[in-house]
Amino acid sequence: MPNPTAAMLVIGDEILSGRTRDANMHHLAGRLTEAGIDLREVRIVSDDAPAITAAVKALSDGFDHVFTSGGIGPTHDDITADCIAAAFDDTIDVRDDARALLQAHYDRSGQELNAARLRMARIPSKATLIDNPVSTAPGFSIGNVHVMAGVPAVFQAMVASILPTLTGGAPLVSRSLAVMRGEGDIAGPLGAFAVDHPDLSVGSYPFQKDGIYGANLVIRGADQARVDAAFATLEQLFA
Amino acid sequence: MPNPTAAMLVIGDEILSGRTRDANMHHLAGRLTEAGIDLREVRIVSDDAPAITAAVKALSDGFDHVFTSGGIGPTHDDITADCIAAAFDDTIDVRDDARALLQAHYDRSGQELNAARLRMARIPSKATLIDNPVSTAPGFSIGNVHVMAGVPAVFQAMVASILPTLTGGAPLVSRSLAVMRGEGDIAGPLGAFAVDHPDLSVGSYPFQKDGIYGANLVIRGADQARVDAAFATLEQLFA
Repeated sequence: MPNPTAAMLVIGDEILSGRTRDANMHHLAGRLTEAGIDLREVRIVSDDAPAITAAVKALSDGFDHVFTSGGIGPTHDDITADCIAAAFDDTIDVRDDARALLQAHYDRSGQELNAARLRMARIPSKATLIDNPVSTAPGFSIGNVHVMAGVPAVFQAMVASILPTLTGGAPLVSRSLAVMRGEGDIAGPLGAFAVDHPDLSVGSYPFQKDGIYGANLVIRGADQARVDAAFATLEQLFA
Repeated sequence: MPNPTAAMLVIGDEILSGRTRDANMHHLAGRLTEAGIDLREVRIVSDDAPAITAAVKALSDGFDHVFTSGGIGPTHDDITADCIAAAFDDTIDVRDDARALLQAHYDRSGQELNAARLRMARIPSKATLIDNPVSTAPGFSIGNVHVMAGVPAVFQAMVASILPTLTGGAPLVSRSLAVMRGEGDIAGPLGAFAVDHPDLSVGSYPFQKDGIYGANLVIRGADQARVDAAFATLEQLFA
């Protein structure tokens, strides 16, 4: 059985404006690979309601799981929860279960559960909450979409909460070989090698370092022994 | 007149598998902001022909400019050029102008223009070439789509080649203020501030560092004086 597929939707202007580099995508990609879930597509959209809603619909239809990051905080530009509700034709309001979590958290810390913070208890009616052990305000899952915070420490904690509840596949095994030759030199035999190993994914990722061209050759597959055997062949090929 | 819009399409399995972090997205985002072109969406797809073709079509229809990175090298997994040709209903074959560039390059370096390297001269018939001063093999533009290499040094050189040929808008000016308070404390006054400055984009990007919650507040706009005046107000608000 093929592994389940996934997409990620990153919501917010920070990466698109070049202000910050992504961290959550890289984290999720690694965790999904370990879990045997194939991350097939990532989209990054700005804090724009029609763009968010359209992307959620398209990715929810196209993949087994969708993971979102960003836009579920208390400020005016946090519109993700409302967009997700719209994408699923669901209603959204402050929910008692989420409010109780926040009330207990702010009671403990002696802070006020003000109107802004209460926005973080706005959850679509059909969603189930995702635990947030870092800062309490929950994420949520609705249909096949898992909605998480953008702050990396919180995002990572939510991924750790949700991933064990999903059915993964066989973790993909990969091995990589750095070859200090230009891709043009190795493309012929590498292409033949890929044809000879149709059950494996064979990728070539070129790089240039200090004026030297090279490529990382990566073999991926579900079976460790097959990957190891192919890797030995690859090493001989480009020794 | 509003600034032109843009999307980026990153092609390849490296980022999706968690092996590498993106570098090209971050570079392009910064250059486009300087050029007054609004990067609205980024998609990352794997080396899969239907996924690439569908994404190119959707982004070409939705935005003024599309920039792609990756998949135009000589190896078997480099399928971008063929997918772009398909997306534009164009034919593709080795083109004389591209072949001449490569022939001269490999003649100079004493290497053979073998079949693999010649694949890099496969260019859609209606495309114009993008100069590659780093490693010669050209990118190309067709319609509103600009197709560039994935190796960061080459990608950056191609961006530098193509950007001056595009009509940009007023460069966006931005100023940011780090506030060491949780978003829940600042969301109320910040929301009112955003309503008072409808011509500016006001974003709040929360972070957590050493257990302290804070937020970077970012004001963006086309007019430096307006942004500076608003920034002074923001500083007073959260002093």
